[in-house]
Amino acid sequence: MISKIEIQTQMISAVEYVKKTNPMAGSVTNSVTINLVANAQLAVGGSAAMVYLPEEGEFLANAGGATYINVGTILPIYEETLPQMAKTLYENKKPWVLDPVAIGIGSLRTKLLFGFKEYKPSIIRGNASEIIALAGLWGLSGGTDESNVRGVDSTDIVTAAKTAAVALAKWTGGAVAVSGETDLITDGSVVILSYGGSHFMEKITGAGCSLGGVATVYLTGASSLIAALTASSVYNLAGSRAESKVDAPSSFQVAFLDELYKATPAEIAANPFEIEAV
Amino acid sequence: MISKIEIQTQMISAVEYVKKTNPMAGSVTNSVTINLVANAQLAVGGSAAMVYLPEEGEFLANAGGATYINVGTILPIYEETLPQMAKTLYENKKPWVLDPVAIGIGSLRTKLLFGFKEYKPSIIRGNASEIIALAGLWGLSGGTDESNVRGVDSTDIVTAAKTAAVALAKWTGGAVAVSGETDLITDGSVVILSYGGSHFMEKITGAGCSLGGVATVYLTGASSLIAALTASSVYNLAGSRAESKVDAPSSFQVAFLDELYKATPAEIAANPFEIEAV
Amino acid sequence: MISKIEIQTQMISAVEYVKKTNPMAGSVTNSVTINLVANAQLAVGGSAAMVYLPEEGEFLANAGGATYINVGTILPIYEETLPQMAKTLYENKKPWVLDPVAIGIGSLRTKLLFGFKEYKPSIIRGNASEIIALAGLWGLSGGTDESNVRGVDSTDIVTAAKTAAVALAKWTGGAVAVSGETDLITDGSVVILSYGGSHFMEKITGAGCSLGGVATVYLTGASSLIAALTASSVYNLAGSRAESKVDAPSSFQVAFLDELYKATPAEIAANPFEIEAV
Repeated sequence: MISKIEIQTQMISAVEYVKKTNPMAGSVTNSVTINLVANAQLAVGGSAAMVYLPEEGEFLANAGGATYINVGTILPIYEETLPQMAKTLYENKKPWVLDPVAIGIGSLRTKLLFGFKEYKPSIIRGNASEIIALAGLWGLSGGTDESNVRGVDSTDIVTAAKTAAVALAKWTGGAVAVSGETDLITDGSVVILSYGGSHFMEKITGAGCSLGGVATVYLTGASSLIAALTASSVYNLAGSRAESKVDAPSSFQVAFLDELYKATPAEIAANPFEIEAV
Repeated sequence: MISKIEIQTQMISAVEYVKKTNPMAGSVTNSVTINLVANAQLAVGGSAAMVYLPEEGEFLANAGGATYINVGTILPIYEETLPQMAKTLYENKKPWVLDPVAIGIGSLRTKLLFGFKEYKPSIIRGNASEIIALAGLWGLSGGTDESNVRGVDSTDIVTAAKTAAVALAKWTGGAVAVSGETDLITDGSVVILSYGGSHFMEKITGAGCSLGGVATVYLTGASSLIAALTASSVYNLAGSRAESKVDAPSSFQVAFLDELYKATPAEIAANPFEIEAV
Repeated sequence: MISKIEIQTQMISAVEYVKKTNPMAGSVTNSVTINLVANAQLAVGGSAAMVYLPEEGEFLANAGGATYINVGTILPIYEETLPQMAKTLYENKKPWVLDPVAIGIGSLRTKLLFGFKEYKPSIIRGNASEIIALAGLWGLSGGTDESNVRGVDSTDIVTAAKTAAVALAKWTGGAVAVSGETDLITDGSVVILSYGGSHFMEKITGAGCSLGGVATVYLTGASSLIAALTASSVYNLAGSRAESKVDAPSSFQVAFLDELYKATPAEIAANPFEIEAV
């Protein structure tokens, strides 16, 4: 099993790489939180670009170091854009992050999410209910076809999604990050629990979406597991720090983005986590 | 006529219900202020979900405790999404809020807003010019076909919209909230004036849209009149409090959302209002 | 050559006009930064309205004092909306601002941007790479067909775009504003360098887009050159002031919008700039 110190060394490299190279990470992401996703990506040192059209999605898929697909708000054109983009990413061995927001709402969303199975996203990020529902949709263990997704919120706790997360990671060969009070990250062989964060995360929209966007930025220069863990770590660190300075959600969001920007590679790697074999 | 104390008791119940149950209120809303709408809904204790597609709109209409339709930015697909959604809401007796933003711009907007007449929104929220124009479009008294809507801004004062607001409320059997320096809320039998707020409300985009979103959240657990008044009251309270702490609009927006979150049920019910028979 | 004092007098008039008349400036702009564009337009004293549909774009083109077209995120309907809108603006002699964001990504974006050549935008605002690429697309001197645009970022410095900016301004008969560490504004006969700003501008998304939106507001009451310079000046002033008060990007954005609101006509005109003949 990979050692904690080795993981931390790789996390530091990932953060330093991003801060030095300002890598471009393109996205098709939802309109509710699109601004927060971009600002979070910029705060950690990355560069953001968002598009809607098939041809433009393919352009970003090829041009970016890693790409983010978040299905939070589906537009009609996505029926063309997203499968084409995911296919390009998979065939060109380009890493990408999937956020299956609100899985279960609408047949196009379901069709798109089902279709991503064969294009094996490098990182899947969601709350517990979304991860369980995606495993169910893909016919993997730990999944259920009776979704507990309620709009964009989770009604399951993170540990309940462990089996589903491991199964998804084994299928994709990448990593899965389950967001919750404690975050669970797995690559199918190890399970990492990342601690910290803030109760205010649930009182602003887009904490999860922007975490997916930041994981995409780190994925331009790190493995799926390291990118997912680094993103969760900087979120947990910045969340804790921001919470200590404010008493309400909007101030929290400002302070949180500020702390994302301020967090150093060593501080991010030192954010508490535990690792265990699957 | 309903007494002030009875109204306040119901307002307290509405706020407590939302804070305890975190009710889901789905929206189709405009892209300019969509993030603020969601964050305002979360700040008062609700849950938000935004969609574009017909089938997804119908899903939210059925799944949510109440639903918000804001026509601020029209996409081509709305020609299908919005009528279908409004029909579902009406036929299933699900409460919903309409914000007729920028009524008068474009024939599809006009067609959609005209079509909503038969689906009787539980709450209509707008500025004075929008309320007068909607009454005109629906052929009700107090309306005019010579709109004074200028883009998204109002050129009429709230009291000038009283006749139109009462006529609209009588038609729908719900409530109408006219936003302005003083807010006017009516259910067709009583007219309530709600005081407070801030001049900075006009210096940020989305104060009105997010008020509609918050009214939708309260509508999951209260009557149309109470939900509309409670939303106006928390806005007027949070606006006044925020204004006292800042000297410019962007700081105001942050402080305002913070105060939305902090306002207690009793404080919201105690925000100044006056009630009179129509 | 126009004198500095004459320019400053016109800048003061432009800012006063906007603060007094609250002019409406409609936009079709990208979804990533649409909220910031609107809030920046409101902060300086203007009024904002954003649409997507062809007929609505034409409505705003006719109704507004000036109009903003920003191609940052292209939707399928823009194939109809944008050419029709630009044609209306040109034929009705209505001033308008073009922001050729991410020129080079996708064939529809290229086709739309190429088509704008004949409709001669009053102001073109972009970073150095975008200005060079647009001059190239339009077959003007200083342009290149080998774009250095990387997503939405520039890899060229402002002075490298001087020839292209002058050529574009001569073609349109309007002004071109190149954003960078120092901003370059030209009307084809004079070149003005505007100083100030903040390194945090690159750490938030939408500094450029919202500058285009604010230039549009000033264009309702000033010449192309004065509007472009006034917008750059208030951005440089507010950026410098905001930077002195914060230590991270999200606090910067809040402080920056606040300073946009607070800046007086005289202060904006006094922000450092230099003028030279082409």
